[in-house]
Amino acid sequence: MPPPAPVDHASRRAQVSQAVWRILAAKGFGGLTLRAVAAELEVSTGLVMHYFPTKRALVAHALELLEKDGAERPRRPHPRPGLAALRTALLDLLPIGEENTARNRIWVGSWDQALADPGLHADQADRYARIRAALHPHLAAARTLGELPADADLDQLAATVVAFVHGLTVQALFDPHHFPAETQTATVDGFLAALRNPDLN
Amino acid sequence: MPPPAPVDHASRRAQVSQAVWRILAAKGFGGLTLRAVAAELEVSTGLVMHYFPTKRALVAHALELLEKDGAERPRRPHPRPGLAALRTALLDLLPIGEENTARNRIWVGSWDQALADPGLHADQADRYARIRAALHPHLAAARTLGELPADADLDQLAATVVAFVHGLTVQALFDPHHFPAETQTATVDGFLAALRNPDLN
Repeated sequence: MPPPAPVDHASRRAQVSQAVWRILAAKGFGGLTLRAVAAELEVSTGLVMHYFPTKRALVAHALELLEKDGAERPRRPHPRPGLAALRTALLDLLPIGEENTARNRIWVGSWDQALADPGLHADQADRYARIRAALHPHLAAARTLGELPADADLDQLAATVVAFVHGLTVQALFDPHHFPAETQTATVDGFLAALRNPDLN
Repeated sequence: MPPPAPVDHASRRAQVSQAVWRILAAKGFGGLTLRAVAAELEVSTGLVMHYFPTKRALVAHALELLEKDGAERPRRPHPRPGLAALRTALLDLLPIGEENTARNRIWVGSWDQALADPGLHADQADRYARIRAALHPHLAAARTLGELPADADLDQLAATVVAFVHGLTVQALFDPHHFPAETQTATVDGFLAALRNPDLN
């Protein structure tokens, strides 16, 4: 019988990553320990520590995974520039569907540790700045198209839009029956209607 | 020498509560352990367990404390009913000032554990429903006053307003330099201006 194929470093690391993801989606960061990852993979804690020597290393890796996975997630096509494109970007961020719900659940769960750890704290501040920057072109296009008032403060609006979408995310995660996909979508539409230039017919 | 005054149950419990609060504000729920509380109070872990037998009991107590403290916090007087009153209610919720910042930091930090624990999860869903209900009368008054469109959907608006204020809270906690009190206030004013009935002169 041939010996079992050797497990290379990269694929073992990927297995560990997947175990981390499953634990976070089910139990959150409070349930993420080296021991829990080892149990999930049916390996020794020492083997997990070979890849991630501390819990903090596991957490930092989980957050990188999350951002990578989020960047690669399937997105709705943008129908038109301006508020229509902003609408689809917001729907892509919300906890609609199983994968986006799991990803958001992990993000929200990461905030406790990120607020307590200066390095993770700074990473999260940068991440928020990137989310605001990613929505900025949609707001600029909407202003150019006259969908937003000519004097709209785009930096402030970007913060407002991100605030709205993340605050709706948290409410929906805690009360999915009150916020099914259609309610989240209607709430986005109501919010965008309020932003819309009242002079536009 | 007289014996030391006996520490009664209620005051010892209050001391434990204060230690829990200090740990949460500094390290979050990830740093809240029976051992950390015992160290903070310079007592044995066994003594802490006499009051709170498990970490979950500590966490549930911390969340009760937080809601009680939040309900009793000093609030700005409401100048006029309607959107002006809503504005002051939102400013009271935001992380403006040291105490409101600490309280919000603890709330946001509690979400990881609350999402993983069915009982705490349901408590948080109820809490969101109460926050929406508390803002509802301001929205109803604003609609009656004509500050909001006559056909405004108040339930949806309450969810939108809570989403906005909590999402702004999270951004401000992670990036206080980008969101000082005056920026948070200006963002609230911009948001409320967008909600305002465009037919109102």
